[in-house]
Amino acid sequence: MAETRIIEADLTWTGDGFARGVQVAVGDDGRIEQVGALGVPPTERLEKRALLPGMVSAHSHAFQIGLRGMGERFPGGAGSFWTWRDAMYGLVELMDAKRLRRLCLRAFREMLSQGITTTGEFHYLRHDVSRAGFAFDEVILDAAAEAGVRLCLLCSHYSQGGFGKPLLGGQVRFASGDVEAYWKQLDHLSTRIDAHTQSLGASVHSLRAATLEELALVHTESKRRGMVFHIHIEEQRREIQQCIDAHDAAPMALLCERLEIDERFTAVHCTHTDPTEMERFIEMGGRVCICPLTEANLGDGVADVPGILGSEGRICIGTDSNARICMAEELRWLEYVQRLSGEERGVVTDDAGRLAPALIRVGATEGAAALGVESGAIEAGLHADFFTLDLDHPTLAECDDESLAEAWLLGSDGGAVAETCVGGRWVWRRGESP
Amino acid sequence: MAETRIIEADLTWTGDGFARGVQVAVGDDGRIEQVGALGVPPTERLEKRALLPGMVSAHSHAFQIGLRGMGERFPGGAGSFWTWRDAMYGLVELMDAKRLRRLCLRAFREMLSQGITTTGEFHYLRHDVSRAGFAFDEVILDAAAEAGVRLCLLCSHYSQGGFGKPLLGGQVRFASGDVEAYWKQLDHLSTRIDAHTQSLGASVHSLRAATLEELALVHTESKRRGMVFHIHIEEQRREIQQCIDAHDAAPMALLCERLEIDERFTAVHCTHTDPTEMERFIEMGGRVCICPLTEANLGDGVADVPGILGSEGRICIGTDSNARICMAEELRWLEYVQRLSGEERGVVTDDAGRLAPALIRVGATEGAAALGVESGAIEAGLHADFFTLDLDHPTLAECDDESLAEAWLLGSDGGAVAETCVGGRWVWRRGESP
Repeated sequence: MAETRIIEADLTWTGDGFARGVQVAVGDDGRIEQVGALGVPPTERLEKRALLPGMVSAHSHAFQIGLRGMGERFPGGAGSFWTWRDAMYGLVELMDAKRLRRLCLRAFREMLSQGITTTGEFHYLRHDVSRAGFAFDEVILDAAAEAGVRLCLLCSHYSQGGFGKPLLGGQVRFASGDVEAYWKQLDHLSTRIDAHTQSLGASVHSLRAATLEELALVHTESKRRGMVFHIHIEEQRREIQQCIDAHDAAPMALLCERLEIDERFTAVHCTHTDPTEMERFIEMGGRVCICPLTEANLGDGVADVPGILGSEGRICIGTDSNARICMAEELRWLEYVQRLSGEERGVVTDDAGRLAPALIRVGATEGAAALGVESGAIEAGLHADFFTLDLDHPTLAECDDESLAEAWLLGSDGGAVAETCVGGRWVWRRGESP
Repeated sequence: MAETRIIEADLTWTGDGFARGVQVAVGDDGRIEQVGALGVPPTERLEKRALLPGMVSAHSHAFQIGLRGMGERFPGGAGSFWTWRDAMYGLVELMDAKRLRRLCLRAFREMLSQGITTTGEFHYLRHDVSRAGFAFDEVILDAAAEAGVRLCLLCSHYSQGGFGKPLLGGQVRFASGDVEAYWKQLDHLSTRIDAHTQSLGASVHSLRAATLEELALVHTESKRRGMVFHIHIEEQRREIQQCIDAHDAAPMALLCERLEIDERFTAVHCTHTDPTEMERFIEMGGRVCICPLTEANLGDGVADVPGILGSEGRICIGTDSNARICMAEELRWLEYVQRLSGEERGVVTDDAGRLAPALIRVGATEGAAALGVESGAIEAGLHADFFTLDLDHPTLAECDDESLAEAWLLGSDGGAVAETCVGGRWVWRRGESP
């Protein structure tokens, strides 16, 4: 046990609630060795702190933080997802490696400050101006390593600018080449990643950005390699209609018909997915990633969360455009949007009707599972990825052990996060500049 | 000018956007004397700060902060507004003056930390256990004075426990007596308030809590006195049906038929108001207070904000239950809930299609107007009620002058608020304990 540290906070999240007197033994490999009343003096006694499993953003485009506060003027009347996409393409055209690195560092550090320890970077902006190699892939890896956040890099296959259309304008910066070139670059990246904190996943940007043949090839190979696979799906009604026009079926129907979906498959958004197709996707093992703040900002619509949960579907959270990064806000509005549309309270709850265990599961456990990352709970064998809440924070005053989790999730924000740990290393502390 | 201070931040909100080089002259009466390029050296040069008008919570029940994180377990399946009300009544039965004072101080200080300089306390919990006098009225006044927040105390007339029902259980702590007793207590309070930072308004809790005769009497007298008048209205479908059963008309229809509504009248919630009745109310001059976080938490439903704005209705914001206090989150979700339900972006915008000037107007200017408080903008003659944003805050990094307001409203929170000023006095600074 010479290299083992014992961390003990006042309160530790067990998955079921907060408990006192829980010690967490962390090995020098950055993994949790033991959890419980270990009866040894703690190496690190975290006073006035509650320890929670690190949150996971299962779907992020870090560079889009550069659009924060932009694309929000509507001189011609109402805007849409598509007018926002024009602004995003404008940012893409101006992007170089230096700016991308700065934006990624900013996004990743802001994630850490909110208790997010892992980001799933759905990475389609692959090329610098010169378009030599996939220069931006390594920018993401380096920025994540510098910030200290755990990264699953979900490189996107992207080969067309719409159903049957060539890449145009800024879209040439997304080109992944043919499927062979796609996997060749992933093979290269596998030699470049920091295996302690980084992993690779596969993705196809969307059905509008690849042919059905490419989709099947990339997905099949990702399964053969045991990698997770992510895809944007049915965020906007227009893209569903375009898909029906091109392929005589909606995107989700195509996925379920053409692919052997399993628990490594995550469909991002599913805002307008037909309930029957959703049920079929869930039965095959598929997961759903919801991005409450981004979907609200973009005016996407309201996903059928009660239907997904009713079919025992597994939901995780993405900070997506990173226009705002706040996991407590993402989680409460996952629930609140449903309360507003259904006029009932208590949608995302566990079997006992409790909100906090269900929301923390969504925010941490399911996100980690969607990325194939061994974290998302404070349990032996998993990465030591945590964050703490400051029990003296004014927003949490007078909470008892029973209401603390709900008080943070519904009544607070990242301001109450005191420090964040990735792989056993405290990589962010409130009040310290990076 | 001996007693005049000159405040100059890097950026100052003009109502239309941020401007540089703006000086704000504040007199020793706590009011703004002049605004512009005054050509004098500033007394207070606020470096790396943007100065904005103080936000207004036009509808708050401060004591309900004691419920934060509670009432969020649903063992019997979904909950409702009414199960939440049971939890609130439980809190009421345990309340004494000491606890009320502590909860109010906590709520008011948290408001100041979020840039809220004025609270409209919709005050219906009037009595301590003994029920002697209206002991809790003075607790609110004293706590607001101690915290330093500007207060409009909207004392509620409350005489029945439902349409034609007696007060039961905790409701006896709400009893205001007959209309004569109601005004007698307001006369007493008018001698007790600190006229520099406190004012009085009238309210009837709701149509279920008073007779129509009492409603008309209280409203008529409030008009005679030139006071603002507030009432809860049509938050829940059940109360609308009960009102129709009791009075053969929906609450809003009754208001418009029975009362001479004008611009001093604020209807709180209007979640399920019939569009025709809403239009009539707005034409008479009535205002609407929306409480996005509370209405979402309670599962009330989605108010017709586009309809209200389309009729040129004036909307203000209330933090209501104070389960979460964050003005940026209230304002963005006022817009976001509409984006989700209407699948369009840009609902709460000014004539030029801009979001920030419209949202800041809702959050500050319209809230002040609804409370009859002379604040809500940085203009000569108004109270010197401000807050500042820290331009070095990580969430606002890389913003330009044009995108800063949207970046704060959509991408940040109270963490970026640096200090708050009420009546020319800096009453809250980040990092300083009260």
